[in-house]
Amino acid sequence: MSRSNILAVDAMGGDHAPEAIISGLDIASLRHPQAHFLIFGDEALVAPLIAATKRLKNHCEFRHAGETISGDMKPTVALRLRDSSLRRAIDSVLSGEAAGVISAGNTGALLALSKIVLKTLKGIDRPAMAAICPSARGDVVMLDLGLNVVYDARNLVEFALMGELFARIVLGLPAPVIGLLNIGSEEGKGDETLRTAAAMLRESPIAKQFYGFVEGHDIAGGTVDVIVTDGFTGNVALKTGEGALKFVYGLLREVFQAGPLAKMGYLFARGSLRRLKETLDPRRYNGAVLLGLNGVVVKSHGGTDALGFAHAVDVALDMTSNDFNSRIAEGLAAMDSALLSAEAAAAPNV
Amino acid sequence: MSRSNILAVDAMGGDHAPEAIISGLDIASLRHPQAHFLIFGDEALVAPLIAATKRLKNHCEFRHAGETISGDMKPTVALRLRDSSLRRAIDSVLSGEAAGVISAGNTGALLALSKIVLKTLKGIDRPAMAAICPSARGDVVMLDLGLNVVYDARNLVEFALMGELFARIVLGLPAPVIGLLNIGSEEGKGDETLRTAAAMLRESPIAKQFYGFVEGHDIAGGTVDVIVTDGFTGNVALKTGEGALKFVYGLLREVFQAGPLAKMGYLFARGSLRRLKETLDPRRYNGAVLLGLNGVVVKSHGGTDALGFAHAVDVALDMTSNDFNSRIAEGLAAMDSALLSAEAAAAPNV
Repeated sequence: MSRSNILAVDAMGGDHAPEAIISGLDIASLRHPQAHFLIFGDEALVAPLIAATKRLKNHCEFRHAGETISGDMKPTVALRLRDSSLRRAIDSVLSGEAAGVISAGNTGALLALSKIVLKTLKGIDRPAMAAICPSARGDVVMLDLGLNVVYDARNLVEFALMGELFARIVLGLPAPVIGLLNIGSEEGKGDETLRTAAAMLRESPIAKQFYGFVEGHDIAGGTVDVIVTDGFTGNVALKTGEGALKFVYGLLREVFQAGPLAKMGYLFARGSLRRLKETLDPRRYNGAVLLGLNGVVVKSHGGTDALGFAHAVDVALDMTSNDFNSRIAEGLAAMDSALLSAEAAAAPNV
Repeated sequence: MSRSNILAVDAMGGDHAPEAIISGLDIASLRHPQAHFLIFGDEALVAPLIAATKRLKNHCEFRHAGETISGDMKPTVALRLRDSSLRRAIDSVLSGEAAGVISAGNTGALLALSKIVLKTLKGIDRPAMAAICPSARGDVVMLDLGLNVVYDARNLVEFALMGELFARIVLGLPAPVIGLLNIGSEEGKGDETLRTAAAMLRESPIAKQFYGFVEGHDIAGGTVDVIVTDGFTGNVALKTGEGALKFVYGLLREVFQAGPLAKMGYLFARGSLRRLKETLDPRRYNGAVLLGLNGVVVKSHGGTDALGFAHAVDVALDMTSNDFNSRIAEGLAAMDSALLSAEAAAAPNV
């Protein structure tokens, strides 16, 4: 079996673990019959669930892990647990058994453990967290979402490169358009770091796909396919957008319960309202991805159900089967030679 | 007439100027019969509009201004026009004739001119831009929205103080709750500047109203009444939220045009959908405010109509008639003595 089809899974992470995790993997086994899962967790809880599945039981290997990392455990404490389901899953990527790992558990622990155990991909200075968001013109990729509060222009350029490849592989776009998040679209806007990153992107191999600066409203507007930003801004923007969508949802629920006429209206419009709900279904956007590590690392939302977890598996398998990490390395090499020749061309003759 | 009821108005700024401006002032004259407007603009265009109003003509004084600042003019160019309607309006605040100024025109020019002409309020290091946003638990104030890309902890504390008073006066809240925008609610999250600002707020006179760190989803969630952040993050968050609302609006429009059943549904639910629309009506949230200058400065949205402009006038008059600026000065003095005694208490005995 090709290693690119093997995913390590932490069965104990998330609010509805291990039930939602195992059901999610069962759904994923139907969608991806070639996939194989190494499942880590508490045998007494997990093994019976696997045995009861229709398909998953023939597509996995279960391994007992003696410890569980709770949702509120500090990463520093989690790092010390050598036999946790999460640690064992990540270790199996390091050893080469699995091509990627997926967990719905403690985000801080997943980040800390995967950075320490798997280490950063050669040529990447800082890993980034990416996610897919809905927009008026289809799905868009946004990164970084919280790993890098401290960053420089080169980091932003690396995020752009990783985001571009991620959008090609996971969204299936032939030439994703990239925007750098700023507070205005004019060239002089933002700080020095943003302006330097923009200048570097204009000299990079993905220069033709670089749109320039974009603003907050361009995220849901779908102006570009990949939104590049630092971890602080990206985290705030993602959560602000989610919060705004949730707010309107709440208002809509009130609207259709406002009286008998409104309820009647709901009955008539139900079919097309359902499509709206599907478009915005948070489960479709489940799975933030850690880019730039030696191995694919996917974080499923802690509160997800089986269907949401299966979506996160889709993303992980898209990345492993399309050899995301080797292609990042190729992209970096191409960019570095382009930037070097741009520098050489710009240098005065001596 | 009390100066606090006199507002200077740039009649030439905005996409629908001067018509929308004059109609907006006419609406405002009905709501605020005590108000008086000094209107600056091109006599040939503006004077006939004023003469045709029902009420405004008795509540204003018109002054011809020979120049107009266009929407795309660079602030550096705008600064040189001494007879522009905007400059003349701001000058009338400096001279003490008017208590505040309001414009729907070029934002960059308004910011640059009002900072240079009016100067920063004594004790305030940097002015901030604030706006009111809808949330699941009523309106909230957010600041800074783009003036300060460079900032320190003391600036954030000053924003909190100004935002608190703004929420008391404009939203009518007796003790607004303040949150500091971050990427997690735990104490250790964010950078040093945020942690220092949080520590200072815990020692300030508004300590009891300080909620702590909040995240992006808390904005529309209405967790607190005042969201304090730097200008870059605030600008991105505001526009991201607006973009998300616009996106859902577009989807809703599609939903109700999806077929005869959906259209029927719309007819039934129309009444309560209208209330949803009113709740989110951008005109209700029109009027970003520059806090921390010697004079009240309100920026109306460039694309606003008369009703939106009238809302911006409401905000400006709330601030001038409640003596916003003197109360900011008092708040600053109280805070400084509280921080000083906190420092003294923390100092070792020598």
